[in-house]
Amino acid sequence: MHKTLPFLDPLLIVLSLLALWFAVANFNSVKRFLVGRPMRSRELNNNHTKLFWFIALPVLAADLYSSVAYGPEAGITEIAQLGVDVKWLIVPITLATVILLTALIISYIMGVSAYPNGGGAYAIAKDNFRAPWVRLLASSSLMIDYILTVAVSISSGIQQIASAYPILAPHVVGLSIACIIIILLVNLRGVSESASVFAWPTLFFMLCMVFLIGYGFIEGGPHGLVSKYTPPFGVFPKGLTLLLLLKAFSSACSSLTGIETISNSVPIFREPRTRGAIKAYIALGTITGITLIGFSCLLYFQGISVNPNNTMLSQLLGSYFGHSILYQIIIWATFLVLILAANSTFTGFPQLTALMAGDGFLPRSLLVRGDRLGYSNGMLVLAALSALLIEGFRAQTNSLIPLYAIGVFVAFTVAQIGLVKRWLRVRGKMWRLKSFINSFGAVLSAVVAIVFAVTKFTGGAWIVLVVLPLLMFMATKIRKHYTLLADELRINLKEERPIRHHVVTILLLSGLHRVTLNSLSFALSLNSDVIAVYVGFDDESIARIEKRWEEWGNPCRLVTLKSEYRSLIQPVQRFIKFVESREGGRPDHIHIILSQFLPKRHWAQILHNQSSLLLRTWFLWNKDVIITTVPYHLNESEIESEKT
Amino acid sequence: MHKTLPFLDPLLIVLSLLALWFAVANFNSVKRFLVGRPMRSRELNNNHTKLFWFIALPVLAADLYSSVAYGPEAGITEIAQLGVDVKWLIVPITLATVILLTALIISYIMGVSAYPNGGGAYAIAKDNFRAPWVRLLASSSLMIDYILTVAVSISSGIQQIASAYPILAPHVVGLSIACIIIILLVNLRGVSESASVFAWPTLFFMLCMVFLIGYGFIEGGPHGLVSKYTPPFGVFPKGLTLLLLLKAFSSACSSLTGIETISNSVPIFREPRTRGAIKAYIALGTITGITLIGFSCLLYFQGISVNPNNTMLSQLLGSYFGHSILYQIIIWATFLVLILAANSTFTGFPQLTALMAGDGFLPRSLLVRGDRLGYSNGMLVLAALSALLIEGFRAQTNSLIPLYAIGVFVAFTVAQIGLVKRWLRVRGKMWRLKSFINSFGAVLSAVVAIVFAVTKFTGGAWIVLVVLPLLMFMATKIRKHYTLLADELRINLKEERPIRHHVVTILLLSGLHRVTLNSLSFALSLNSDVIAVYVGFDDESIARIEKRWEEWGNPCRLVTLKSEYRSLIQPVQRFIKFVESREGGRPDHIHIILSQFLPKRHWAQILHNQSSLLLRTWFLWNKDVIITTVPYHLNESEIESEKT
Repeated sequence: MHKTLPFLDPLLIVLSLLALWFAVANFNSVKRFLVGRPMRSRELNNNHTKLFWFIALPVLAADLYSSVAYGPEAGITEIAQLGVDVKWLIVPITLATVILLTALIISYIMGVSAYPNGGGAYAIAKDNFRAPWVRLLASSSLMIDYILTVAVSISSGIQQIASAYPILAPHVVGLSIACIIIILLVNLRGVSESASVFAWPTLFFMLCMVFLIGYGFIEGGPHGLVSKYTPPFGVFPKGLTLLLLLKAFSSACSSLTGIETISNSVPIFREPRTRGAIKAYIALGTITGITLIGFSCLLYFQGISVNPNNTMLSQLLGSYFGHSILYQIIIWATFLVLILAANSTFTGFPQLTALMAGDGFLPRSLLVRGDRLGYSNGMLVLAALSALLIEGFRAQTNSLIPLYAIGVFVAFTVAQIGLVKRWLRVRGKMWRLKSFINSFGAVLSAVVAIVFAVTKFTGGAWIVLVVLPLLMFMATKIRKHYTLLADELRINLKEERPIRHHVVTILLLSGLHRVTLNSLSFALSLNSDVIAVYVGFDDESIARIEKRWEEWGNPCRLVTLKSEYRSLIQPVQRFIKFVESREGGRPDHIHIILSQFLPKRHWAQILHNQSSLLLRTWFLWNKDVIITTVPYHLNESEIESEKT
Repeated sequence: MHKTLPFLDPLLIVLSLLALWFAVANFNSVKRFLVGRPMRSRELNNNHTKLFWFIALPVLAADLYSSVAYGPEAGITEIAQLGVDVKWLIVPITLATVILLTALIISYIMGVSAYPNGGGAYAIAKDNFRAPWVRLLASSSLMIDYILTVAVSISSGIQQIASAYPILAPHVVGLSIACIIIILLVNLRGVSESASVFAWPTLFFMLCMVFLIGYGFIEGGPHGLVSKYTPPFGVFPKGLTLLLLLKAFSSACSSLTGIETISNSVPIFREPRTRGAIKAYIALGTITGITLIGFSCLLYFQGISVNPNNTMLSQLLGSYFGHSILYQIIIWATFLVLILAANSTFTGFPQLTALMAGDGFLPRSLLVRGDRLGYSNGMLVLAALSALLIEGFRAQTNSLIPLYAIGVFVAFTVAQIGLVKRWLRVRGKMWRLKSFINSFGAVLSAVVAIVFAVTKFTGGAWIVLVVLPLLMFMATKIRKHYTLLADELRINLKEERPIRHHVVTILLLSGLHRVTLNSLSFALSLNSDVIAVYVGFDDESIARIEKRWEEWGNPCRLVTLKSEYRSLIQPVQRFIKFVESREGGRPDHIHIILSQFLPKRHWAQILHNQSSLLLRTWFLWNKDVIITTVPYHLNESEIESEKT
């Protein structure tokens, strides 16, 4: 058992409750402080941030390059139970992923030259396939994978830190969720300010990894680069099956997610942007390939084992440098780049959902730009869903990996087929070669996606295969709803004009006091046909209200109803039915007035019976009645100060 | 590491989301199914359930008697790190708690004879102390302890089961929360039906424990009752301090919580109820004392050690019976009785909070009886807070114990002092003896409470010492709020009568469509002074709406406002201010009409911009305006079926 900090969890809960309280009580100022001043709509177009390719590279590299930290480990974990003889397999498995990486990057370079304005899988599918399900397949897969990218990157980052400080190990879930909240807040503030700042940690992590590999190959470990302790190479362990090998390969392919980032973001490159993006792709592919191979060789040479409480990177660093300052620096750099990978998803996901919402496939609220011009609602959705995944899988990277990367490869496949269709249609320079390359990419991605789905099915991939069609179905339903709605709401301005009609106003009483006085004054000001309705739970209270109503001079008709089941809704509902039948059942002829207490201090709200809110919601949903809320603002504090 | 069920957690999350969805969509039928048909108010008085003392005993015993399962273990856990030499100390520590138990039961018998209608600490304090803080001290302490009783009993119950089935160990939090939800539902259905059913599991558990102790003393373990393997008696382990010993004693005293239950429930006894309650107290004290001493002796004789993954009861049973059917039966009986202990709290807590709410110390909604005549809101609060505790302390009984029992002993002290004051006031038969006994009880409880607070302060008792005054402060504030409110709302029926006045109606437009037509018809039916207001984010949309308004024949005045920050609230707020100043700033003179889409199917609600809801909330809180919601019920499904 690890040592634990027994107060961390309850303390975190108490602190977050206090923070929540404070945030609700001071919503506006807290929002300003955290999110920043609101920005005018026209500030959107000030994009002075065109980047030179060498700077754009690290800005866009975090997602792909950070996977180095968990990809090879995820692969070897699948077969680790077969013993030390499997250790050498990390090298050929990683080599296979690097070959796949090369093929995909070449395919993506084709995509960049075809869509210089940024072509995500959704845009390519929309441009090349008429049937909406194709782009829904691409976009739903991508949505799932964006959410998983956040969950996997953050839990891996926190696991690196927990490897360095085992005392944090029992708190990985809480810490991961705290990270998500921080990233969310940073992104709600707006990304544009920060884009180029994000280049440096990635660049630094790249340098760290290059240094690590160089050090490993030149200096070697405590027993040299390859010592007698290095496990044997080329021995096939007992019990190894093709299925297991494919499973290991598909888990290792989690290090390929994020390839698409550059092709989505071509417009941020300085002109000539296509050339810049292609250069960035080649450079990124080269360094990622070298790092993956070098890193996996070192893991094998040092005979590093899988340990759920100590990542392989942390073990390798430990074997070279102990727990020195160098170890600390590289672990923190890894953590930072993994957090940046999650952060980059907070740009991609809201853009995708906004595109889909624009086509009517998702709720329109995903199109609303927040105070800082980002798609805030998309960010909130992403943060909530990835936090749920982290909570559900207890922030264990290796439990999340089986769900991961299927979505990306499905989207890759759709995008590549779309490109092939495009080359066949548009033709242009070297269209035969281009369509061959993309066909090859499509087949490769499709095969990989199927291998993933089959080998990792029982490990968790089934969840993705259930959620994916559900998402597509939901999107179709949503679009249908919007289309029907638009038809229903259209009016003919020449013929359909507002009509004045008779309205019955029903005022619900809770007693005779200042609030009633206020509401009744309003009701009588607008309408002469006002009925006051009182619901009592016993005969005494009904008799009392009738007597006091007399005393008040019968300001309007009073109807009293007795409720045996202590429900307000049922007797009022029966009364409305009665009035409705008298009015001929036409909508917007019945008008209900409810009073609502509003204390000075928000907390005091819970001291008042929420029946007004409940009634309002119920009637709105279930009856064709119009509901007015007359607020009564209490000023207890004034009375208080008068008294003292 | 334990084996885990990797899908249990995500599966539980998915299932609960589905269940939530289903419950929201079919709220009424689900509620009927889970909670049962609503009951008439007059059914409350059919209490045909007066119980003979021998039946009432097990009904009321679950809380106290079930603590046997964790009390001795909680005590010895505090000093377990000192080695095997501490094992014998479990006997004298338990003996000390039994002596305390005897003293408290005698004190409580005095209480029963004084308050034959049921005298909880709150009622006794209210009857004997004029200052409200005394009864708030008692009731707040009891509230804290009720919540802890649920958390401790359930996590201990689940730990018993997890000891028997280690595969469940990683899921104790989820399982504990599931138990709370089930108990909550059972209690929302109503307790009266079930009271005597609950007697049997407790009775059965008592028989199990008596059988276990009998078996242990007669048959002995694999090496006899006291073998050469039994650790030595009377050897003081190195490092044992008085503080540690007191700490162990105070943790062991967690087995004394629940003594107060009988004295709160005297009215459920058949006449003569006081005699019945006294008999039940004597019988319960005797059997609890015997069980505690017998059980702790056996634990010592068998040399059972503390193991966080295997409770001492489970180990003892294992050493006698292996994992046989007998082991299973007793473990499940223990689980059941611990669940019943939590269940009994679901009667006590809501009664206490209802009493306090009746005096204005807590929100009035705690006084509302639910469909099944129980105080549903109190039950919901108890369930939510205990679930939070379980989540925060990861369902570890031994982490919760330091918070536990302080509250009970504070309440004991207040109640005993109250009784002393009563004897001094009322006198009556043997008043000197009675007041001596209760004084002794008061001093004893106070000393124990102080020992708890000091020895367990850093272990978690500080949380209670922070929350307790906060609760008392909160209750005082709430009562003040209610008092001021009543003063403010009182009106003079002869002098203050409703007055008709001028109202300006402002209709917020989102465009010109059927919804606008509907709302405008309503607005013009009630008032002739209607202004339509449109907020646009750009000039084009504003020009378009002005042109279409012309085409519509200018049904009323139109005002267009431009919002640069994409906010609806700010421009509307400025406009309201302008109208307000024209109207002389008097309240209830400005009337805002908002339209709200209401799709047939609830899920479709999230597809519509919630700005109407947002605006309504904001204006209600921040402005003296009256808000009307005109619902527009969509009927997409009809169009859909027409088309097909």
